[in-house]
Amino acid sequence: MENFELFGNIDQGQSFLESMKSKKFLFSFVISYTETCEIPGITFAGADKDSIQYTPPADAEYLHYGYCKSIDKIPMTPDGKPTPGLLTKTALESASISHLTINAGSKISPQLPFMDTGMTFGKNISTEDAMTDSQVSHAVDYGRIVGRSMASLTDCLIIGESIPGGTTTALAVLKALGFDAKVSSSIPNNPIELKNQIVNSALERIDSEHPYSIVAKVGDPMIPFVAGMLSSASSVSNVMLAGGTQMAAVLAFASKIGFNEENTSIGTTSYITDDKTANFTSLVKEIADIPAISVNPGLKNSQYPGLKAFSEGFAKEGVGAGGSIISSMIKTGNNSTKFLEMTEKEYDRLFTSQ
Amino acid sequence: MENFELFGNIDQGQSFLESMKSKKFLFSFVISYTETCEIPGITFAGADKDSIQYTPPADAEYLHYGYCKSIDKIPMTPDGKPTPGLLTKTALESASISHLTINAGSKISPQLPFMDTGMTFGKNISTEDAMTDSQVSHAVDYGRIVGRSMASLTDCLIIGESIPGGTTTALAVLKALGFDAKVSSSIPNNPIELKNQIVNSALERIDSEHPYSIVAKVGDPMIPFVAGMLSSASSVSNVMLAGGTQMAAVLAFASKIGFNEENTSIGTTSYITDDKTANFTSLVKEIADIPAISVNPGLKNSQYPGLKAFSEGFAKEGVGAGGSIISSMIKTGNNSTKFLEMTEKEYDRLFTSQ
Repeated sequence: MENFELFGNIDQGQSFLESMKSKKFLFSFVISYTETCEIPGITFAGADKDSIQYTPPADAEYLHYGYCKSIDKIPMTPDGKPTPGLLTKTALESASISHLTINAGSKISPQLPFMDTGMTFGKNISTEDAMTDSQVSHAVDYGRIVGRSMASLTDCLIIGESIPGGTTTALAVLKALGFDAKVSSSIPNNPIELKNQIVNSALERIDSEHPYSIVAKVGDPMIPFVAGMLSSASSVSNVMLAGGTQMAAVLAFASKIGFNEENTSIGTTSYITDDKTANFTSLVKEIADIPAISVNPGLKNSQYPGLKAFSEGFAKEGVGAGGSIISSMIKTGNNSTKFLEMTEKEYDRLFTSQ
Repeated sequence: MENFELFGNIDQGQSFLESMKSKKFLFSFVISYTETCEIPGITFAGADKDSIQYTPPADAEYLHYGYCKSIDKIPMTPDGKPTPGLLTKTALESASISHLTINAGSKISPQLPFMDTGMTFGKNISTEDAMTDSQVSHAVDYGRIVGRSMASLTDCLIIGESIPGGTTTALAVLKALGFDAKVSSSIPNNPIELKNQIVNSALERIDSEHPYSIVAKVGDPMIPFVAGMLSSASSVSNVMLAGGTQMAAVLAFASKIGFNEENTSIGTTSYITDDKTANFTSLVKEIADIPAISVNPGLKNSQYPGLKAFSEGFAKEGVGAGGSIISSMIKTGNNSTKFLEMTEKEYDRLFTSQ
């Protein structure tokens, strides 16, 4: 398993990697929204201010169709760097891993069949509560239902997310739950000052230790929904949370509502685990006794600056890229060199062949 | 396989029954709506006129929670006979078969996580076209996407439906596609005169041989959607259409857009295949070279008049009851006696223990 680096519960991670070799994976893609992303400078997950809300549904459409319907091009940063969904798409397709989109509060519905949860988007935590307590309950309950259903259909449920601005709400939830988190960002010069300002003003509203109340005040809809999914799915099959900081926040909230650690892992890219401004692996270790699996997608060696950028601190993770790459490598036996080759082919299809 | 009676392609039916014994099933429940059901006297699928629109979502909720959220009690006929969903629920639960609800044009959304397709309900075919041609295309396209996804997660995809008034639109589609159909009904004195009147006035609007145009004018949203599902799913895994007349209409339309007969069967109750006023088995044989599998749920011997009624021509089928019972018997090896025992227990839980 030279492709992967393991942290946390290493024994469990090794036996997971070993046991999944000939097994079935299912990728669930949870799209959501927090108005927190509308704060200027907080996210690069969209070409401009108005297009950020289209990023989650467009990522879902791109994964499914290979192109987007809600917007013209695939989601990218203001200076044209592509969505990490490009890595996810390459990974899932190369390993024939099925996927399903779940709308857990996206502002815009994707133009494809998706799982509806009746959830609405989260409010801007710098100025008001993200949700009501009963919206959090609904998210957890529906997450539990969806998690149980999906997990019964596969050997390993991978859960990825797309929620612009989500690292800020994740940071707030982690801090409020008592973890000393330093989170990663889609921006290389992580706007830590700005994030901390927002988080601190959000934390002031907290008046209860109850985890539901905390997530309602300073979180986002994705966190309780995916925690609900993890809670039920991990009692049925293996679950891999695919992501960095945001999945750490899911894990922190899930540890309050209960889940089966023995069936759970978190999978991400080396761009997250190597991020010196954050403390991902020690944070995961503090939260739960599970393995953190890290993969180097090998993009440093890309001929395309748009792909190389991932290795230079842009995006780093998202759309469940890391977990998808890990799963596809487990299933196909491919290494980083092969993955880079396929990713460049996909990049080529999207950007140079038109 | 003494539990089942086979019609049509009997060899294929036998090898299907044999090969599925230790395999995985997934039940997909497609809910929809046609305003045709609002014509007085056309359906008994609801306690009164206003509650018919709640029957599809309520059936979905009952299958999932064991009780309904959109209405107080489970769906029933005006005189209190329960939904065939009671048989489906008993069958799926006893065999631990997972299910997923798909909203393909229900007027009311169910209160649970469901697959959304962006479809709207069908119009009353006695007075206007059910849908536009582009709505039919959308239904087929989205059906294909959903069918492919679901089929990749199981060895046999069972497809059931709930669309009140659907036997009338099914009759219209079958006739318009050139089949001499005599359809069954949820009412023992099948209102054939009324149905024929509606169908004949609908058929007058047909001005093209194109199957999409025919379904748009005289069909309902469920038919093109499930045909799309069948079309893609049958290229990936086994598919069992669970139903009577309405699934015959799906089959007729699907035979125009193409599907893999070798992986397809239709499963229903003996109350449909024994119905002398209809011609289900010969109709299926005329449409496609597939097996029709019939199961006797054994309800004739029930101590409860509400269950015995199914064997006397009430409801007969619906909510994929027949196909669910067949699948659960394949998986568990249970017979009709055991199934009746479990069904009475569920009936008891619902009606006598409160």
